[in-house]
Amino acid sequence: MGTDVDSVKGHTNARADEDIRRVDPTIGDLIVMQALPIGAYAAPVSAPTERAVNLADVARLAGVSPATASRALGGHPHVAAATRERVRRVADELSYVVSPDASRLAGGRTGRVAALVPHLDRWYFAALLDGLAGALRSAGLDLLVRCVGGAADRAEQLQRMPGRRVVDAVVALAFEVDGWDGADVPLVTVGGPPSTVPFVTIDDLAAGRQAMDHLIHLGHRRIAMIEALDPDQRSEEPVGRRVAYEQALAQAGLPQDQDLVATVDWGGVEGADAMARLLGLRHPPTAVYAHSDEVALGAIRTLRRAGLRIPDDVSVIGVDDHPLAELTDLTTVRQPVREQGALAGHMVATALSGGDPGPGIVLPTQLVVRGSTAPPREERR
Amino acid sequence: MGTDVDSVKGHTNARADEDIRRVDPTIGDLIVMQALPIGAYAAPVSAPTERAVNLADVARLAGVSPATASRALGGHPHVAAATRERVRRVADELSYVVSPDASRLAGGRTGRVAALVPHLDRWYFAALLDGLAGALRSAGLDLLVRCVGGAADRAEQLQRMPGRRVVDAVVALAFEVDGWDGADVPLVTVGGPPSTVPFVTIDDLAAGRQAMDHLIHLGHRRIAMIEALDPDQRSEEPVGRRVAYEQALAQAGLPQDQDLVATVDWGGVEGADAMARLLGLRHPPTAVYAHSDEVALGAIRTLRRAGLRIPDDVSVIGVDDHPLAELTDLTTVRQPVREQGALAGHMVATALSGGDPGPGIVLPTQLVVRGSTAPPREERR
Repeated sequence: MGTDVDSVKGHTNARADEDIRRVDPTIGDLIVMQALPIGAYAAPVSAPTERAVNLADVARLAGVSPATASRALGGHPHVAAATRERVRRVADELSYVVSPDASRLAGGRTGRVAALVPHLDRWYFAALLDGLAGALRSAGLDLLVRCVGGAADRAEQLQRMPGRRVVDAVVALAFEVDGWDGADVPLVTVGGPPSTVPFVTIDDLAAGRQAMDHLIHLGHRRIAMIEALDPDQRSEEPVGRRVAYEQALAQAGLPQDQDLVATVDWGGVEGADAMARLLGLRHPPTAVYAHSDEVALGAIRTLRRAGLRIPDDVSVIGVDDHPLAELTDLTTVRQPVREQGALAGHMVATALSGGDPGPGIVLPTQLVVRGSTAPPREERR
Repeated sequence: MGTDVDSVKGHTNARADEDIRRVDPTIGDLIVMQALPIGAYAAPVSAPTERAVNLADVARLAGVSPATASRALGGHPHVAAATRERVRRVADELSYVVSPDASRLAGGRTGRVAALVPHLDRWYFAALLDGLAGALRSAGLDLLVRCVGGAADRAEQLQRMPGRRVVDAVVALAFEVDGWDGADVPLVTVGGPPSTVPFVTIDDLAAGRQAMDHLIHLGHRRIAMIEALDPDQRSEEPVGRRVAYEQALAQAGLPQDQDLVATVDWGGVEGADAMARLLGLRHPPTAVYAHSDEVALGAIRTLRRAGLRIPDDVSVIGVDDHPLAELTDLTTVRQPVREQGALAGHMVATALSGGDPGPGIVLPTQLVVRGSTAPPREERR
């Protein structure tokens, strides 16, 4: 089900969910580029695997000096063919490979990419990481995971960004990297706001409009928003999912009532608390737009405890398409999370193989109608 | 709410949830050791951080040769005090640290630990990894994540186990490592079955008994089990959560009806399908014991779609205490997942600092009664 936000400058409307669009954030206006198949970003890099056997073991069993063994394995011309053959056979039997760290230090490559992750135990971040790990693995790159904490820790981690002796590149998962002063390895962000470094993300404004326009089309006039904000995010700018709320109400000629906006941290319990606040209003909402499925599921718990039926008494919509959204019959706006992680991995591989990862990729979102939304009661009479 | 399984040889009953018990799997009988605070396992190892600056930069700015700079920073005695002071001041200003890879290759330490993870995007694995990452970080160790796929890929990854040139240790997340032929780095398992290598896990039999005994105490006589099995797990032995079902029924004098057992892969949709099969029985169950909360939530969706009320018509219990279990008011058996990951990290740090990580740790589980279980209808009349 599409929405009409073409008029919104600098944002893309999602019409087809296979569409991959690239945005140049320095211009602001949308540049729609031809969609590339995901595989097109992949670039193989030699695989970092090794075993416990060392060169001395190979040399001893082959009956040669370590220097000769090294030359034989390196394809050096001044080694007799029979010796080279013998050394290689022994090395194969022992599954010996050259130490990747040692060889990469010489070549300036570690074979590793670091992911900086604020909340490893939340589904969204785990799904991003899963996609990233898969793409890196297929490019022969190892994934180093560094958890980052609150705002102070993020700033410190960005200051002490792992450099080229530790990793070949860094991927920041869903947090702002402005102020990162450019270390000596490529940086890619995924799931955060569009950035001056290569990024992969969704259009939060378009996603929010899909949710809000659905509720408005159903006939709801009193719509609450449970806004989720990362307390450690530094930006003062209103995020796309909030802008979508205000814009949709304004375009539908509906009044803005700040009582209908509850702002909490991301999380189910937080959503439950916010819903309780909204139920305490003199005129409670007939529909709730939550910034994530987990927040929406929390709101639903509060509604059920209050004896209200969903969607008969109150409609609820989330954003994400969390795996449990399907199980709990939650209407939501689906974002492709694993795909965002995979694309970030492909961008990294492209950059490391000397290619151009491009300025950024914005993936489309899609309304998924399930059983938690319906017209308000007065409309259904 | 405790259960009585003391008679079960080789398994521990959970009485207090702060209790940490250590088991020697080679003996079989339980050895209960004094609980240790989590911090007791921690052992600091030097932190792997660095910046883009290299030794030549430091030398140039300090006006000395790189060799002199290296001796000055290394505390070599044959460097004038003034020179040493100047070099160190420059190094501090540039935030220069010795390349961790280069210095660790010399010392035989990489500062990294690899986690082998079958399903990164599932809550359980992400929570294990979150705990592991935190413990490793506090020990100054970096976390390398390798996703492993199905049975064939697991076997291959264990064959190509990262060795001491890549990592200092390996942690296998919730899969069997029997047949691993011992590389040159320590291996720890977490969340899997007790093993001959150091392990952290829960007592699946005790957890299953807590769930089953709760349903039996409520008066249920016709109890179904939705058994979740990893199709890529190689063991032919029945797992603890299944043994618990059979044992609890037998001890309560209830018949075993194989129609009441549905075996599926871990997952919500799988749980929903299994519940549909159980509802098709001539005599459907009055209660369902699911091996995980996600499986239980799937079963609940099917029950609701069939117009059945929970717990009025059917009781449902899971295992895990997934964050959404609280939001969906699901009765469950809580296992400390993040804590298992953290303890595995502490065991690794202990081993790497020359300590003895011990044979293994079994953490207790706990029944959490919420709104999805109640006595069967006939009992409530």
